[in-house]
Amino acid sequence: VNIASTEPFAGLMPTHQSIGQFEEGLAKDDPAISAGMLYAYAALAAKVPYVNFTPSTTVDIPALMEFADVQGVVIAGKDGKTGQTLYKTVLAPMFQLRNLRVSGWYSTNLLGNDDGYVLSDPAHLQQKVASKLEALAPILGYDDVDHQVDIHYYAPRGDAKEAWDVIDFVGWLGAKMSMRVNWLGQDSILAAPLVVDLARLVWFAQQRGERGPATQLSAFFKTPLNTREHNFFEQTRNLMMYCDSASRRNGGD
Amino acid sequence: VNIASTEPFAGLMPTHQSIGQFEEGLAKDDPAISAGMLYAYAALAAKVPYVNFTPSTTVDIPALMEFADVQGVVIAGKDGKTGQTLYKTVLAPMFQLRNLRVSGWYSTNLLGNDDGYVLSDPAHLQQKVASKLEALAPILGYDDVDHQVDIHYYAPRGDAKEAWDVIDFVGWLGAKMSMRVNWLGQDSILAAPLVVDLARLVWFAQQRGERGPATQLSAFFKTPLNTREHNFFEQTRNLMMYCDSASRRNGGD
Amino acid sequence: VNIASTEPFAGLMPTHQSIGQFEEGLAKDDPAISAGMLYAYAALAAKVPYVNFTPSTTVDIPALMEFADVQGVVIAGKDGKTGQTLYKTVLAPMFQLRNLRVSGWYSTNLLGNDDGYVLSDPAHLQQKVASKLEALAPILGYDDVDHQVDIHYYAPRGDAKEAWDVIDFVGWLGAKMSMRVNWLGQDSILAAPLVVDLARLVWFAQQRGERGPATQLSAFFKTPLNTREHNFFEQTRNLMMYCDSASRRNGGD
Amino acid sequence: VNIASTEPFAGLMPTHQSIGQFEEGLAKDDPAISAGMLYAYAALAAKVPYVNFTPSTTVDIPALMEFADVQGVVIAGKDGKTGQTLYKTVLAPMFQLRNLRVSGWYSTNLLGNDDGYVLSDPAHLQQKVASKLEALAPILGYDDVDHQVDIHYYAPRGDAKEAWDVIDFVGWLGAKMSMRVNWLGQDSILAAPLVVDLARLVWFAQQRGERGPATQLSAFFKTPLNTREHNFFEQTRNLMMYCDSASRRNGGD
Repeated sequence: VNIASTEPFAGLMPTHQSIGQFEEGLAKDDPAISAGMLYAYAALAAKVPYVNFTPSTTVDIPALMEFADVQGVVIAGKDGKTGQTLYKTVLAPMFQLRNLRVSGWYSTNLLGNDDGYVLSDPAHLQQKVASKLEALAPILGYDDVDHQVDIHYYAPRGDAKEAWDVIDFVGWLGAKMSMRVNWLGQDSILAAPLVVDLARLVWFAQQRGERGPATQLSAFFKTPLNTREHNFFEQTRNLMMYCDSASRRNGGD
Repeated sequence: VNIASTEPFAGLMPTHQSIGQFEEGLAKDDPAISAGMLYAYAALAAKVPYVNFTPSTTVDIPALMEFADVQGVVIAGKDGKTGQTLYKTVLAPMFQLRNLRVSGWYSTNLLGNDDGYVLSDPAHLQQKVASKLEALAPILGYDDVDHQVDIHYYAPRGDAKEAWDVIDFVGWLGAKMSMRVNWLGQDSILAAPLVVDLARLVWFAQQRGERGPATQLSAFFKTPLNTREHNFFEQTRNLMMYCDSASRRNGGD
Repeated sequence: VNIASTEPFAGLMPTHQSIGQFEEGLAKDDPAISAGMLYAYAALAAKVPYVNFTPSTTVDIPALMEFADVQGVVIAGKDGKTGQTLYKTVLAPMFQLRNLRVSGWYSTNLLGNDDGYVLSDPAHLQQKVASKLEALAPILGYDDVDHQVDIHYYAPRGDAKEAWDVIDFVGWLGAKMSMRVNWLGQDSILAAPLVVDLARLVWFAQQRGERGPATQLSAFFKTPLNTREHNFFEQTRNLMMYCDSASRRNGGD
Repeated sequence: VNIASTEPFAGLMPTHQSIGQFEEGLAKDDPAISAGMLYAYAALAAKVPYVNFTPSTTVDIPALMEFADVQGVVIAGKDGKTGQTLYKTVLAPMFQLRNLRVSGWYSTNLLGNDDGYVLSDPAHLQQKVASKLEALAPILGYDDVDHQVDIHYYAPRGDAKEAWDVIDFVGWLGAKMSMRVNWLGQDSILAAPLVVDLARLVWFAQQRGERGPATQLSAFFKTPLNTREHNFFEQTRNLMMYCDSASRRNGGD
């Protein structure tokens, strides 16, 4: 399970396109291969299931997706959904189901630990913000929303994480309304049990003979691999149905 | 559809117990029969579907439940879920699914119109608060939550409605975290489309030969009749499944 | 310095009117004499300066005001200004100086310790709320404000204290605007240095030969004795001027 | 009175250093002379008092300060204090006077009109943020505060302006506390009466024979010219004392 700080990513290079090219790149220390990709490669080579709990680009390049398939290894990711994106994917379905048109969603985040410090570098920040921006449009079904996500390193917050959201929405007859959310969370505390569950669930999937992206684990991630399902309740239902089905096949409970 | 201001309720009386006793009470102008009950009785007598969009006790007394069944009339209620309880029944499932223990939920409401003014009378207020307190425990699965709901008539808010919530929750290793929500809604604007949908849906149900409490409409209400399902996403799924099934039987879409 | 929990008060009785009647009451254990009054009386009898840091009615009855004067003892109070009322008396002058008309100010408080528990009894609560309601009108210069103050015992808050305020104000051409404040304080931590300063300042005043209510200490209290000055900056200026003047007379700095 | 949108500023150039160099620059259309400077120059040339209500660099360059003095014209500025900075300079003195150490102050702003749109260009934004960052340290008396100011163009907010602040402060024994403020203002409505008052007050000062920066008007500005006084109550007191003194000299009231 990758839980290192967010790495920058300069875009897909030829090295990332196939496992052949990737291994050539390895041989000549190609700088396009990040530390995160190396760890992912090592896991796959050892046939150990791999989870990317960060927004870094690691296993989610064509070369390693191909390698995971070849090796018959389960992979999952990416970017653990622990705070703002969690409640965003919970509230957005409410607006969608009640036909309340979301016109804007401004999100800011304050964090004061080393993860936050790394994100004060714009190259690292970009990966994180991209991951956080993705969830809204697929749930709402439209993308003309003024959706903004900000992340700030703010020393007094320490290991805790604070988020603030303003949501503007429009009701019948064009009536304007709004909602604000203020979240005071402990990121590591929220992440730890998810990491434990993920470790068990990818192991379980591997035992069952699955390979490649474990889409049944989308509820755990901000940017789930190989699925556009972001609605937290649909994601959770998918996981429940997967568990039911798996336990029936196993003749157990 | 009853959208009058909240009425006080002094508890179940003999008059409320059966349709026979209720009609005796009618004959002698029993004060235990409220205006809201009278309207509900009239609708049922005319075999017109009846919806209670308020927290008042009207059709939900044994006498009128029995009468709805006898008359073959569809009824629904009660208390439209338009603001604070809507997002409460959206957020509470998130805490439950992530195994975050809710230790307290303080909710306050400010409203400045006549509905708010009526609620500044404690007898009226009690009905409303009871309705708002009900949703949490069935979703969370435990009731040792310091759950408080306040409603205040606050003149400057006018027709709008403001709500503020503090949610305290506990994560792994007992770590304390919290979330705050501030809602600025337009109650009538939020209620109107629901009232229109309800009018269509009870009519549709009546045409299909249903009678009594329409539990498929629980997503619309703070205190749905004859069901303990408060999770907004489960409620919505029930409605979707009902619609699918009804449309299949009708051979339509 | 009285820092006990808030006591209820049933109104002025004959026993409270003069020191003579008070001492008669003492002799016959008159229940109109509260524990707080007894402590205040004992301090005055011993010629020790007395500070009431609570909203209880203690030294602020005619009998004990008279006794303080007779004994030549400095008294101060009442109700330490540590949180919501502190910032209220800081923000209200801003609105007044900018000619922004305050139309409503809703304040709610959550506290989870024994002080909060005592206040969940309405008789105790009334004293506290009265003390908190007093500050606004004298600063604004008008009293047609929908000013509401709520206090709730909310167990998850523990020793901390949370406050939330909504302030509605009206600008040029009747434009409606609003401000919200959310305060997360530690009441004892905020009170302790004030208690220490007060102990020194009443002792200093006593040494200088002052007697009766120390109006120069109004900045410390929600309901300062014998003055209607609630603006925190005017109060602080009064204290500064008092200190300057006292130090000049003492030939010191 | 300059109320145009914020202009970018590339730093002081030789052209800005003296009125002689400035007029040479004028003759050859030097691009270092902004539109705002041109208007200011025109006002001074016509001996009309000039107010800069924006954060743009206009009259506050050595050349035009000199010119104002030569021409005997009153000038005032800069950047009207209407919202977030207003309450910041009201709350900061409270923390300072109560000896509560401010460790961080995060401020974000959302505005959706053309002023906001102009600020979405980083060159323009820089001037505005610099102006907003200035007020805190001079009031608190120390500058090791994690003070951050953000401004965002957020279309759904329209002509209104929203601000949100988190203030972290430390009390006795290092206890950590915090305060949050959410402001929903109408910028133009808040600015208009200040503009009218400023027009009158600079005219009045000009009539009295004053010239150059009117420091008595510091209460109106985020970055008052020629003074480090940012505390709103001290600023207001200075204005009151100025008015008293002026009216005494005029023998009027």
